[in-house]
Amino acid sequence: MGADSAVPQPDDAQPEARHIPHTHAHAGRRLGIIAGGGAIPLAVAEAASSAYEQVFIVGLKGLADPGIARFPHAVASLGHVGAMLRLLREARCDDVVLVGHLRRPNLWTLRPDAGTIRHLPQLLRLLKGGDDHVLTRVGRFFEGQGFCLRGAHEVAPRLIAPTGAFSQTAPSPENLADIRLGARVIAALSPYDVGQAVAVSRGYVLAIEAAEGTDAMLARCAGLQAWGLKGRSGALVKAPKRGQDLRLDMPAIGPRTVEGAAAAGLAGIAVAAGQVLLAEQAALIEKADAAKLFLYGFNFGDETAGEP
Amino acid sequence: MGADSAVPQPDDAQPEARHIPHTHAHAGRRLGIIAGGGAIPLAVAEAASSAYEQVFIVGLKGLADPGIARFPHAVASLGHVGAMLRLLREARCDDVVLVGHLRRPNLWTLRPDAGTIRHLPQLLRLLKGGDDHVLTRVGRFFEGQGFCLRGAHEVAPRLIAPTGAFSQTAPSPENLADIRLGARVIAALSPYDVGQAVAVSRGYVLAIEAAEGTDAMLARCAGLQAWGLKGRSGALVKAPKRGQDLRLDMPAIGPRTVEGAAAAGLAGIAVAAGQVLLAEQAALIEKADAAKLFLYGFNFGDETAGEP
Repeated sequence: MGADSAVPQPDDAQPEARHIPHTHAHAGRRLGIIAGGGAIPLAVAEAASSAYEQVFIVGLKGLADPGIARFPHAVASLGHVGAMLRLLREARCDDVVLVGHLRRPNLWTLRPDAGTIRHLPQLLRLLKGGDDHVLTRVGRFFEGQGFCLRGAHEVAPRLIAPTGAFSQTAPSPENLADIRLGARVIAALSPYDVGQAVAVSRGYVLAIEAAEGTDAMLARCAGLQAWGLKGRSGALVKAPKRGQDLRLDMPAIGPRTVEGAAAAGLAGIAVAAGQVLLAEQAALIEKADAAKLFLYGFNFGDETAGEP
Repeated sequence: MGADSAVPQPDDAQPEARHIPHTHAHAGRRLGIIAGGGAIPLAVAEAASSAYEQVFIVGLKGLADPGIARFPHAVASLGHVGAMLRLLREARCDDVVLVGHLRRPNLWTLRPDAGTIRHLPQLLRLLKGGDDHVLTRVGRFFEGQGFCLRGAHEVAPRLIAPTGAFSQTAPSPENLADIRLGARVIAALSPYDVGQAVAVSRGYVLAIEAAEGTDAMLARCAGLQAWGLKGRSGALVKAPKRGQDLRLDMPAIGPRTVEGAAAAGLAGIAVAAGQVLLAEQAALIEKADAAKLFLYGFNFGDETAGEP
């Protein structure tokens, strides 16, 4: 399937309807975006700006793309929760989205402000457990402050991966078998709050992502391809953990993911349809097509959690 | 618990009885060891030499420790299966053990001999799937050639990890919780023929080993310790995949593993008691005690495979 037919384009109103029943439910509301690193926060801001009366970005210092200057915005340190709350209230935001790369902060480099110290008991409770636990509590904290927490997929549904191939190359039956194995591994790891991505080649799990992130995981795959056989093989498989709150941590791929997969000797990238964000879609697909890699959305949730 | 009481010492006859009911069943038999990399093959040879009439080592070229010269031995390339079979037969070996590091070969750097070519159809069937599938077929191949395949734990039971702490430092309750989480992750991954080791800290899975090996996995952990909190935390957890044939692929730790765990900021190493080999036990324990790391054998198989 070609890119044109499979990827929701800006003018395609239809795919949005599947992901958010009330497309115009945001009319008259103001959106606050707390922006981590990468291209996704800006893409979300752009995609959401037509539906919302106003989009205001709080860029996290040292993480957010300088391009947020195109929108009403401010910058806050990750340690300055008091400042974030004040900025979101001053901009009269109704809804809040947390989006972008957000590596766990080093507590010793954060310089807490008064708001952070006031909320310290709640914030300290964030420090235990896996990502899901931490993010769930972050989300509850903002909800407890009166904001309506939204997911990027809700405010910018056209950024979501479609079902099927959305590149010129489609996965082979062997690739599809690797994708199924990868999806089962991600599903098996879900109860343990770990694993959003795996690399599988020729029925062999090359690498599993834990805390290091997808780019670092891909960087070690090239040397692990089995047997030194020629030719690209296998897939990067990316999906949310089962039961993951997509409002808090939605997996994403972008052009850099394609570069990483190509360098890893993989044949393509498979993502859970409807549950993974596509950053810089045009550049993403162009890079994949140039490298003859497939991009493929699979239905995640069908695989048995038991024996493969 | 101190090292002296917990670790089976060469003169301790008792722990062997648990792992191999007929300790003297090897009397009069000749053992062939196909030796990959690392210190374990020599330790197995030394431990087995009292029970066997003869120990003969076939060192894999470029992998085996030169120290195998202390035993009757020969060297063969991994591609020269014909030579291996001939050497084992000339040495009149009854039992065969495969032991030591054995990274999957790059087919293009192997120069197959006539024996390899004669057995090519069987060998080619080895090339698909995960490690377990490959090794099961390797084992069946040697058994099909008339040898009795043994595990390192059967011929050298005193090299096996005991239950409980076998270092001066014992794991804290927080460490034990991390160990339980790690064991559950390994159990959950078992059906997919992947994962013999994970690193867990403060309830958070830092890293999961797939094809890269334990040392490489540990090397990336230091930068992943959550929040930059001071002090050692968490554990390397190592266990065989469930249902793994220990005759073919037995997990092992050694002094280098302790160095890696210390550099990763972990508080210690936990291994499945009775199912993991300890290489260079004296140096292993000495290094752990010097670094104040715990070494701990847990009962693997009790954790529920389902929700944590």
